[in-house]
Amino acid sequence: MSAAAAVLDAARLRGITIATAESCTGGLISAALTEVPGSSDAFDRGFVTYSNAAKTQMLGVTAAALEAHGAVSEEVAAQMAAGALRGSQAGVAVSVTGIAGPGGSEHKPEGRVCFGIADPFGTRTETVEFGAIGRRQVRDATVEHALNLLLDALRP
Amino acid sequence: MSAAAAVLDAARLRGITIATAESCTGGLISAALTEVPGSSDAFDRGFVTYSNAAKTQMLGVTAAALEAHGAVSEEVAAQMAAGALRGSQAGVAVSVTGIAGPGGSEHKPEGRVCFGIADPFGTRTETVEFGAIGRRQVRDATVEHALNLLLDALRP
Repeated sequence: MSAAAAVLDAARLRGITIATAESCTGGLISAALTEVPGSSDAFDRGFVTYSNAAKTQMLGVTAAALEAHGAVSEEVAAQMAAGALRGSQAGVAVSVTGIAGPGGSEHKPEGRVCFGIADPFGTRTETVEFGAIGRRQVRDATVEHALNLLLDALRP
Repeated sequence: MSAAAAVLDAARLRGITIATAESCTGGLISAALTEVPGSSDAFDRGFVTYSNAAKTQMLGVTAAALEAHGAVSEEVAAQMAAGALRGSQAGVAVSVTGIAGPGGSEHKPEGRVCFGIADPFGTRTETVEFGAIGRRQVRDATVEHALNLLLDALRP
């Protein structure tokens, strides 16, 4: 069973649905989840907030957090996940914001990705340095890590 | 140059950005556009409205349209594209809603996909019957067709 199928099954067992908030992956996480036939009963919606304006308008990320910490930060990842949970019917939301490359930005290195998980019990974040392994590889590794975070969050 | 790169270049030439509203592709169109390095100046945001509630809450699709025509209809595709344009900073929005399969639904055949394109000049829709070629194949063909529609809409 794929990681995506395991995540969907875990959500079904809990009787909840999933939302995603994606920046650097641009929709790859929601695409992975919806590749599984029958995912519509466990996947609610996805927010692809590529621009900062989208992060603010769709998810309520504050200008203060973007200015103080930059788009690639655990503060923004936390607000993205919390905003996706609040703005959906889902019981758990995952967020990713990172630098897929090529090249770094915001004085941050290529391959850095911040993750957030939000559920009714709160919001957790973490940062992973995937390194300068290439744009596609960073994005694919980010999807895999996000699915694992969802699986952890959904474990009984 | 990939179709996605050509779409982004065409948007840059027009000085506008792109928004997506996806149901059956689940984020694959925004993922294709953001796979191109430097896409952040031409791609604004994406709405992955997998559930009917998401279509209504994120894009303003009416309950009347969903009830009268079903989620897979040109009426809903038009409302999705118009809602994505209205709810973004983009100058053009593309929408897709279809039946990737396996199996049909809503008494509609597997492989039917409705597309919408919205820009300040109006909204156009069309339906394509890809047939029962498999879930992944329907989704991939839908991405390709959506990128071509964007390219046509952005042509000078």
